[in-house]
Amino acid sequence: MAEMVKVAVDAMGGDNAPLEIVKGAIDAVNECSNLKVFLVGREDDVNGALSGLTYDKERVQVVNATEVIEMAEPPVMAIRTKKDSSIVKGMYLVNHGECDAFVSAGSTGATLVGGQVIVGRVKGVDRAPLAPVIPTLNGASLLIDCGANVDAKAHHLVQFAKMGSIYMENIMNIKNPKVGILNIGAEEEKGNALVKETFPLLKNCPDINFVGSVEARDLPAGVADVVVCEAFAGNIALKMYEGTAKAMLSVLKKGFKANILSTIGAALALPSLKKSLKKFDIKQYGGAPLLGLKGLVVKTHGSAEAVEVKNSILQCVAFTEANISEKIRENLISE
Amino acid sequence: MAEMVKVAVDAMGGDNAPLEIVKGAIDAVNECSNLKVFLVGREDDVNGALSGLTYDKERVQVVNATEVIEMAEPPVMAIRTKKDSSIVKGMYLVNHGECDAFVSAGSTGATLVGGQVIVGRVKGVDRAPLAPVIPTLNGASLLIDCGANVDAKAHHLVQFAKMGSIYMENIMNIKNPKVGILNIGAEEEKGNALVKETFPLLKNCPDINFVGSVEARDLPAGVADVVVCEAFAGNIALKMYEGTAKAMLSVLKKGFKANILSTIGAALALPSLKKSLKKFDIKQYGGAPLLGLKGLVVKTHGSAEAVEVKNSILQCVAFTEANISEKIRENLISE
Repeated sequence: MAEMVKVAVDAMGGDNAPLEIVKGAIDAVNECSNLKVFLVGREDDVNGALSGLTYDKERVQVVNATEVIEMAEPPVMAIRTKKDSSIVKGMYLVNHGECDAFVSAGSTGATLVGGQVIVGRVKGVDRAPLAPVIPTLNGASLLIDCGANVDAKAHHLVQFAKMGSIYMENIMNIKNPKVGILNIGAEEEKGNALVKETFPLLKNCPDINFVGSVEARDLPAGVADVVVCEAFAGNIALKMYEGTAKAMLSVLKKGFKANILSTIGAALALPSLKKSLKKFDIKQYGGAPLLGLKGLVVKTHGSAEAVEVKNSILQCVAFTEANISEKIRENLISE
Repeated sequence: MAEMVKVAVDAMGGDNAPLEIVKGAIDAVNECSNLKVFLVGREDDVNGALSGLTYDKERVQVVNATEVIEMAEPPVMAIRTKKDSSIVKGMYLVNHGECDAFVSAGSTGATLVGGQVIVGRVKGVDRAPLAPVIPTLNGASLLIDCGANVDAKAHHLVQFAKMGSIYMENIMNIKNPKVGILNIGAEEEKGNALVKETFPLLKNCPDINFVGSVEARDLPAGVADVVVCEAFAGNIALKMYEGTAKAMLSVLKKGFKANILSTIGAALALPSLKKSLKKFDIKQYGGAPLLGLKGLVVKTHGSAEAVEVKNSILQCVAFTEANISEKIRENLISE
């Protein structure tokens, strides 16, 4: 029998907490027989959300945490002072080895800070990047880093490339993943100072399959499996992806509702359109992993509903079973 | 009678040169009675493209240029050595005061370099930013800088904010335009070192209407009229906008063609969908102006067809008539 994977879940984080979070966690438990979840949050609220749900009680544990870190709180201060918050307590479960991973739909800042400070980095890792898997026309790409380390240095980006390659190879089953660097032109001499410094380092790195620059325009087409970037640029790319898709959908909806013909047309076309657009649903891959930590930390969307929470938790199972943290340690320690 | 505006056009630049470029120029001449165009390029090719077109011969002049700067050529070297190219010759027409503006669908790099080196900056302007107008859900925003000055400094970004405000107020008729800074969070303490340094400078700048940080996610919704950014980040945002829109349209097309019902639905809905999506056509506003120069330089898409070329030329007329370069000089010189 496969070993039990233990995942701590921030039951209080996100717009739909605790109901959708708890529901997603239970769905994950019911889908995966070697998973145990630790629901961290206000006991009464969590138990209330659990009532009526059917699940194996041996594999669901409620951990009381009386405080909640709000979205707008300054993250460093929140992690330091709210010792009894769901994020701090959940991360300590990983730090103490009681859990393998932690999932939160709550404050991104607090999750990033807590990951670095409480869970802690794997030996050899200088910075832990936030690395969401984004859907592309021909599959998916890992965009690494999307917000954890602004103003990172060239050698950090090289570590991101290695960690990203390990993740895509083991979790997404892509052999010898293609690594590109996010840039403003295809040629080697293009870019800002950071990209120009990083490019030759990636080119000469024997552990990765470097394919050169990736222009943002080509990112949605899926030209590379791992796209390395500094966190500011990566965050702009990711948010622009989400914002443009959202704006276009709202324009389309308006177009469909414009007149009687378009409304009928919409009704006929909608089933296959929805199927087609599902490809672009950024939520299908769960949340964004924070890589290079001693246990996995996954930041899922603040607006996450049960299915995204479930996918994020199952992502933790795959990560733990593939032993990614240890693989990262082995790869980076030999630098 | 309004004064004649003279626009030099790179007849050899872009994928559809010279035919579409020449056609767009002639369309502009036929639409605007106080416009004269100078078609710069290989005389025979340009005359060939002109044959069969009807226009006022007094307001169209062919300027022979025997060389062409290719897209892949290193820009600085190309500008320096190809003295008889359409880009260099066209820009000298502006430099010598024979033309008010220059439009090219050719090499972006050469156009940016030539703008700075040949046309020259207005007194007081330290960097000339590339500033496309992008469509948003509620109108349009100026994204400044999108590629001309990577690794710019905080005080350059403040100048971009001022120039962008003048442009949007005078060309797009937006009173007291809202200026935001592209950032990775809404709060003042968010951002990379450059944004943190720039934010208070913008906040304390009396000449602009600063509204704070703009997240990339909210950019397509049109939350600010002028969005200030360093060129690397701005280029990522712009290209991600174009790339995502393109990818989504290809997914939609596939969805429409999936089965017989969706095909019928598409036929019914398409007219109003197209009308709706037209809002998002980045080409409707012409090309991207390079601001802060002694004359206007407009970089239009490499794939530009006649209508985009025409819009870019008419944009030059509006710019010249509104006396933007002089307004920028007056505003920045008083710093």
